[in-house]
Amino acid sequence: MKTFSEIAAMRAWCRDQQSRAQTIGIVPTMGALHEGHLSLVRRAKSQCDLCVATIFVNPTQFAEGEDLSRYPRPLEQDLELLREEGADAVFLPTDAVMYPDGFGTYVNPPPVSLPLEGQSRPEHFRGVTTVVMKLFQIIPANAAFFGQKDFQQLRVIEHMVRDLNVPVEIVPCEIVREKDGLAMSSRNRYLSESERVTALSLSRALVKAAELVQGGEDRADELERTMYAELSACDKVDYAVVVDANSLQPVRRLDQSSVALIAARVGNTRLIDNRIL
Amino acid sequence: MKTFSEIAAMRAWCRDQQSRAQTIGIVPTMGALHEGHLSLVRRAKSQCDLCVATIFVNPTQFAEGEDLSRYPRPLEQDLELLREEGADAVFLPTDAVMYPDGFGTYVNPPPVSLPLEGQSRPEHFRGVTTVVMKLFQIIPANAAFFGQKDFQQLRVIEHMVRDLNVPVEIVPCEIVREKDGLAMSSRNRYLSESERVTALSLSRALVKAAELVQGGEDRADELERTMYAELSACDKVDYAVVVDANSLQPVRRLDQSSVALIAARVGNTRLIDNRIL
Repeated sequence: MKTFSEIAAMRAWCRDQQSRAQTIGIVPTMGALHEGHLSLVRRAKSQCDLCVATIFVNPTQFAEGEDLSRYPRPLEQDLELLREEGADAVFLPTDAVMYPDGFGTYVNPPPVSLPLEGQSRPEHFRGVTTVVMKLFQIIPANAAFFGQKDFQQLRVIEHMVRDLNVPVEIVPCEIVREKDGLAMSSRNRYLSESERVTALSLSRALVKAAELVQGGEDRADELERTMYAELSACDKVDYAVVVDANSLQPVRRLDQSSVALIAARVGNTRLIDNRIL
Repeated sequence: MKTFSEIAAMRAWCRDQQSRAQTIGIVPTMGALHEGHLSLVRRAKSQCDLCVATIFVNPTQFAEGEDLSRYPRPLEQDLELLREEGADAVFLPTDAVMYPDGFGTYVNPPPVSLPLEGQSRPEHFRGVTTVVMKLFQIIPANAAFFGQKDFQQLRVIEHMVRDLNVPVEIVPCEIVREKDGLAMSSRNRYLSESERVTALSLSRALVKAAELVQGGEDRADELERTMYAELSACDKVDYAVVVDANSLQPVRRLDQSSVALIAARVGNTRLIDNRIL
């Protein structure tokens, strides 16, 4: 497995591979890898000849007071996991490589970025679109693999790629869960034992909503009430909503494309989860 | 000469050429071609195997009340000029191809976009960076050729390409002038005979400033005073300044990298010109 920390060398490797008709799948990550990330690597390997993973804790998508400085960075372990999974190359840039002095051009995210996470974390998606656009320019991948746990992020990136004509296929991948239902997240490692029990209420709320839907319930407000009730042990619920899965705009009644989305704080840890209904 | 109006076909042609080791130079234009544009095509042909010109009057870089609707669109003549010059392909998208319903992602331009044109035309450069980024994604050119008449635009695009790691070389090209000094511009065709005489004051003001510099003058305010005096027949001078050629920030005294920039209105026509000092 090759590792690169410089842009020119990373790009040259990709071009060399592509000149020999090798297709490339990119898996952008912030490291602290778990089974969710590794499932993306496997998916990339199954669809493309080569998999390039990126590990970069992107400062522009964190606001003041968020967890940038304490975000986990178990680099050696991450590299070992990627090696075992058969990733072909890893891009590990520093902050100075990605945001050198004088940096000042940002990709302004599409309107689908505005509700939900956009309300809770106003600058977040601008950081995401900017860094993902940069990665797509550095690594000219044929396809890019993103987990559906960050459901709104996936929509934001899909719209960006469509609007700016980026020549890459965005491949959404299923959420990977722990046996007890907790959605895998690098931030789960912040949770104490008791917080981890409380954190299960997110996936449980989504299952309850799905059960109600199977029982015939189609009123968004009823489903949301049920989710909020299930989340009562959380320290703060940023949102627990049923929205249109494409626009992320509120719906009154479920239709063929609805999704339930939750963001909640357990102790100092902010968790998100979702389920297509 | 091939013409394309659809994104997929344009991109496929480029990829096919590049798979056969042909390099591509792109010349983005809004049409109404003059000798300045044609010099860019010649430069592209001299540096790359193939030249792709684009003709698109980009609505997002015009504000309400500007000349979008009356901007000249002599398409048949433009195509004939490009054919004579040996352009290999032309991309001619419609507004609906470039900005389909639901479009909503913009490239926010770098700080060098803020002074000068950024003050006179606040949304202009956001439209420029967005459409140029789109063109660079559709046409994966090795190099892109821009005239120095739009001096600030050139800097904005250079900074965007650097910040977002776009894999294209930006090649600045000399201003082409009429025999009497008037910088070539598609907007010159708006000028009446008497307005055209007044329009000469822009290039004359720049020559006078350069003469003063050769005579030892290095005070920006003196140079600006001279330019304003020369521009007195114009209907409005948006700016006539001496600034740092990289940052476009004001300078008190000239150094090795200074440029004089003018924007002025003659009748209803807004003209720009500049000269490295």
